Amino acid sequence: MKLATLRTGENGTTAALAMGADTYLPLPATDVGALLADPDWRAIVQATAAAAAAPDSRIVSVSAAELAPLLPRAGKVICCGLNYGDHIQEMGRELPEHPTLFAKYADTLTGPADTIEVHGSARVDWEAELAVVVGSELFRADEDEAQQAIAGYTVANDVSMRDWQSRTLQWFQGKAFDATTPVGPVMVTADNVDGDFEVRGYVNGELVQSGNTGTLVFGPARLLSYISQFTILRPGDLVLTGTPGGVGMGMTPPRFLNDGDVLATEIDGIGRLENQFRIHAPVPANA
Amino acid sequence: MKLATLRTGENGTTAALAMGADTYLPLPATDVGALLADPDWRAIVQATAAAAAAPDSRIVSVSAAELAPLLPRAGKVICCGLNYGDHIQEMGRELPEHPTLFAKYADTLTGPADTIEVHGSARVDWEAELAVVVGSELFRADEDEAQQAIAGYTVANDVSMRDWQSRTLQWFQGKAFDATTPVGPVMVTADNVDGDFEVRGYVNGELVQSGNTGTLVFGPARLLSYISQFTILRPGDLVLTGTPGGVGMGMTPPRFLNDGDVLATEIDGIGRLENQFRIHAPVPANA
Repeated sequence: MKLATLRTGENGTTAALAMGADTYLPLPATDVGALLADPDWRAIVQATAAAAAAPDSRIVSVSAAELAPLLPRAGKVICCGLNYGDHIQEMGRELPEHPTLFAKYADTLTGPADTIEVHGSARVDWEAELAVVVGSELFRADEDEAQQAIAGYTVANDVSMRDWQSRTLQWFQGKAFDATTPVGPVMVTADNVDGDFEVRGYVNGELVQSGNTGTLVFGPARLLSYISQFTILRPGDLVLTGTPGGVGMGMTPPRFLNDGDVLATEIDGIGRLENQFRIHAPVPANA
Repeated sequence: MKLATLRTGENGTTAALAMGADTYLPLPATDVGALLADPDWRAIVQATAAAAAAPDSRIVSVSAAELAPLLPRAGKVICCGLNYGDHIQEMGRELPEHPTLFAKYADTLTGPADTIEVHGSARVDWEAELAVVVGSELFRADEDEAQQAIAGYTVANDVSMRDWQSRTLQWFQGKAFDATTPVGPVMVTADNVDGDFEVRGYVNGELVQSGNTGTLVFGPARLLSYISQFTILRPGDLVLTGTPGGVGMGMTPPRFLNDGDVLATEIDGIGRLENQFRIHAPVPANA
């Protein structure tokens, strides 16, 4: 099944089950994270779907703009850098022994069709990624336990302000601009997944990134297990698995997003993000 | 005034006003962060204190173990590295143009007198720090606005697992072990602060770190303003300002905490953290 978080008027959201193209069945939870917090979430979805088959069906048709970031209140958004062999080489680095991890907050997330407003950066770059949604608590778990704890998979773009990212040794400030990491449109549950994913990124329709998650140095279960050695993961937490080759800063000459550009991020079997950028004035006075 | 978060039985906490040595007046909020989320928090504290002068006083006497981490549910815990001139030099780096920032989560925090259990690291190091508590929303704020938004100051120790921290370029995994960053015992409100702070760290009673926040490259208001250029800060968020010279990894030979060691962290005018360490088995199988 595919789950989404829909916007419902003023700052409200609801979890929803995807029924068909642009049609969703609202579920009794404020978002997918809140749904997953209930260990019986699968039964809740099934019971709601069974009831919806009645004439009083609550199925709604929504526009892309009504899709919220999948996990608007994720407690943890942990990202892995340098995880595809080809991207590692384009960044000029060697294959790693340990995953390179950094943290950001739910404020960084935005919806799958939202306009992304950037203030104060002139080097806005893309990173198309598979993201893993945690479905149950994990602490010092092995890979098998971690695999069992995966609720599903979604699409994200770890949009990065390279000027801020490279100001210091730590990437956080270039990765944590509010409302710049689109995530969605849906989470495909793990039981609907068989094999690896093709991840692609497009700028104004031009394919710029393409990779297969089968080439990840650290796959989803390995990443979750590794992270859980030092911090607990909870239902609704999000782990971004890294980006394949083809980012703008790796090009010759480097290439960044311009005001008005449209970034699309696509994973077969999950869905597509399509976000237009508004790049505002350069670095603000205080930065 | 000085505010704390007290433990109240099974997983419960309450915000409290410090009345004297080890005596506190419980306040109508689950923790200091929840208290600060109400813009009228000062009036709430005053009204509660006025009512407590009556014979039915609710003042309680608590042991250090009953003190929770000051902000157990902080939405953001943002840390600045390399912010004291002497520490920057001991790490072999130059004075920075921009603050080096990294993020962690509230799960990393622990109480001011809690035993700190470390699993899987053999290089546990200390970083005594002044921490700033955000009192009102800040977004793209200048330094004056940021100064006004500071609710108060507390003591923290950004305990770091140097083996994990140095595995990759990003420090997060060495900084985000659950329940390893003590914070408290109280927040001194900004209106009670006049000037700079002396920050000191002790291992088994031996002074190992000492610095004055007057020598910070990026002071509290500058840090909050800078961070707010890219992400919103909210009441109860915590910003750690960096550590002075004297960390173990900077010593010749390097020195790390052993099982049973007691780390004390002290700031005059705020208070003292005192945490014993239990250093468990080395790196686990999955790490």
